Amino acid sequence: MLGTFTYCNPTKLYFGEGSLKYLKEELPKYGSNVVLIYGGGSIKKNGIYDAVVEILKENGKCVAEIAGVMPNPTLAKLYEGVQIARDHQADFLLAVGGGSVCDYAKAVSVSAYCKEDPWEKYYLRFEEPDCPVIPVGCVLTMVGTGSEMNAGAVITNQETKQKIGHVFADERVMPRFSVLDPTYTLTLPHYQIVSGIYDIFNHICEQYFSGEDDNTSDYISEGLMRSLLHSSRIANKDPQNYEARSNIMWTATWALNTLVAKGKTTDWMVHMLGQAVGGYTDAAHGMTLSAVSLPYYRFLLPYGLPKFKRFAMNVWDVQPEGKTDRQIAEEGLAAMEAWMKELGLAMNLTQLGVTEDMIEGLADVTLVLPGGYNPPSREEIIRIFKESL
Amino acid sequence: MLGTFTYCNPTKLYFGEGSLKYLKEELPKYGSNVVLIYGGGSIKKNGIYDAVVEILKENGKCVAEIAGVMPNPTLAKLYEGVQIARDHQADFLLAVGGGSVCDYAKAVSVSAYCKEDPWEKYYLRFEEPDCPVIPVGCVLTMVGTGSEMNAGAVITNQETKQKIGHVFADERVMPRFSVLDPTYTLTLPHYQIVSGIYDIFNHICEQYFSGEDDNTSDYISEGLMRSLLHSSRIANKDPQNYEARSNIMWTATWALNTLVAKGKTTDWMVHMLGQAVGGYTDAAHGMTLSAVSLPYYRFLLPYGLPKFKRFAMNVWDVQPEGKTDRQIAEEGLAAMEAWMKELGLAMNLTQLGVTEDMIEGLADVTLVLPGGYNPPSREEIIRIFKESL
Repeated sequence: MLGTFTYCNPTKLYFGEGSLKYLKEELPKYGSNVVLIYGGGSIKKNGIYDAVVEILKENGKCVAEIAGVMPNPTLAKLYEGVQIARDHQADFLLAVGGGSVCDYAKAVSVSAYCKEDPWEKYYLRFEEPDCPVIPVGCVLTMVGTGSEMNAGAVITNQETKQKIGHVFADERVMPRFSVLDPTYTLTLPHYQIVSGIYDIFNHICEQYFSGEDDNTSDYISEGLMRSLLHSSRIANKDPQNYEARSNIMWTATWALNTLVAKGKTTDWMVHMLGQAVGGYTDAAHGMTLSAVSLPYYRFLLPYGLPKFKRFAMNVWDVQPEGKTDRQIAEEGLAAMEAWMKELGLAMNLTQLGVTEDMIEGLADVTLVLPGGYNPPSREEIIRIFKESL
Repeated sequence: MLGTFTYCNPTKLYFGEGSLKYLKEELPKYGSNVVLIYGGGSIKKNGIYDAVVEILKENGKCVAEIAGVMPNPTLAKLYEGVQIARDHQADFLLAVGGGSVCDYAKAVSVSAYCKEDPWEKYYLRFEEPDCPVIPVGCVLTMVGTGSEMNAGAVITNQETKQKIGHVFADERVMPRFSVLDPTYTLTLPHYQIVSGIYDIFNHICEQYFSGEDDNTSDYISEGLMRSLLHSSRIANKDPQNYEARSNIMWTATWALNTLVAKGKTTDWMVHMLGQAVGGYTDAAHGMTLSAVSLPYYRFLLPYGLPKFKRFAMNVWDVQPEGKTDRQIAEEGLAAMEAWMKELGLAMNLTQLGVTEDMIEGLADVTLVLPGGYNPPSREEIIRIFKESL
């Protein structure tokens, strides 16, 4: 913990089967004008919508809706939501859905009373809100992004093909509460489950593969990764296993609520590469990450060899005897590759509809963040994309 | 994560060298009447007292003091503090010291406006406050208890020789903020450093050695224990190593802020045994724990064999090949014993001034909590104390 930092994460979590009932305890804390935000309507089929609306009604809330939030929420959709929240004079935004819906709700919360264009202010200049922020609560129905306990919000500008995430420093942007009921995730298709699992795993990797000190955060990361490997293997074979699914849900929250990045630098290049793909295709977020991960990490390995060696030994139980550091490290990535294939993740970009002629464009919109062992050049990014085809 | 639970920990942490400066950002949030709470006066020698008083003065605060909070804060001292807080009409309590001072400040915060006797209400009936709770902030100068980010407060009743901790559920009891500057801990005597380290380690053990599921919390615990082992060995040889000391400080906070107990049962018997000793002697808290740990865990091992085996392999890197589960588990405890001796911890109660004639009395005041693999009977408690002599 060599850095100086602050930690504050006031989101209250209600975890476990049946925890939607706690919505009744939270709603009275906010004003009567609620905007209910959700995605493609699956919550209307599985009964969650009805249960939520019933509780809102019992609490005498006046409800407007923003429906149809898409997997990669667009800037056009954000503008639409801002108008609805303003017209309704929203006191509270209730997001019911996965990470995209939570992200979107947070983006609306900081944008509704923003006097400038929110894309310019938050996604190009990365500024903090200096306007009222509408409080947000979440009822999570998918697992992976960690959006339920952080201040991040990713928005896609379809005109410029930019998918950009902003992790706000302002604690007002964090959800006030989140309801995490693992049973809601039991009906998800396999593709979404494993995509979410890889998103979680990669969140941890992004924060782990950086820095050279003996940071406690890296040890916590190793614990979270080991838990996820264990539970993901169970859930992959037996998707109805509540215990495994609940451990995955909890791991997702702690993988990206700022804890495991405290006191250290971070990388985030797999997300930058994957988000570029997300701006070009409609592929599931986790699959855009899995498709580029191995070429990227094999590129990065020589620059962060001690950490990749540690990863191999502490996460994948690679035995070091009689091997060079490089061999140990590569064995760790090979074990990760085998696990990824076992889950059925997308292992290349071709599967996701990316073609070679898109690569220049992808490289154009790939942000390069500082903090990694070797932030890649444009040429290296192009090479990684090509190797990911 | 088989249980249903809530998680909410709003304490804001300012971590790192020089973080006392953030006190200036926090103080304006509270009223002008501040009670400054500290211990035996070491903060007057090392300059922390002057620095804090200077910031309080700059912020125009009207300050009363409660000095001389002892390592095991007594009920008599609590009554004294309640009177001072009331007389001063305290808006805010600022604890500057270690876990005892933080614990004490929280006990005053819930007791100042309590209409009943706080000992009866909070420590015998374990009730929650139904009165105003004075907000508390902490400037931590020692490491170990985790009091800086939880709602626990241990008080010792010298008349009845009972040392009892209450972990309040009410989030108002948590410190609003805590300043964690590892440099403050660099001047502590070796005895206190290692006592704190064992307190941290045992906090994790108490929450780890219970339950049979594959809880994510246990994986996080393993990460925290591995970090602590690593950093404790460095700090033991080189107490001025900032990196090691800062990792220890951060681990202490996360070892006991409710995270690693989420979704699982817990044990806490080493603390119950140690606190009985704390009621009888003035031994450092961590040393009362280390002195009883091995007899207790060797007693517990057969009842929680799979967890002790996992502990051996995942925390102590015991190689399992060709060994029975029992052998693997016992090798883990042997490795723990070697580490404890390396640190120079108290390895028996005789060193702490406990004699055989005290044992009946110690057993009388040892609380037995549910949740462990085998909550001990009175006879077993007596046997464990005897084996600890």
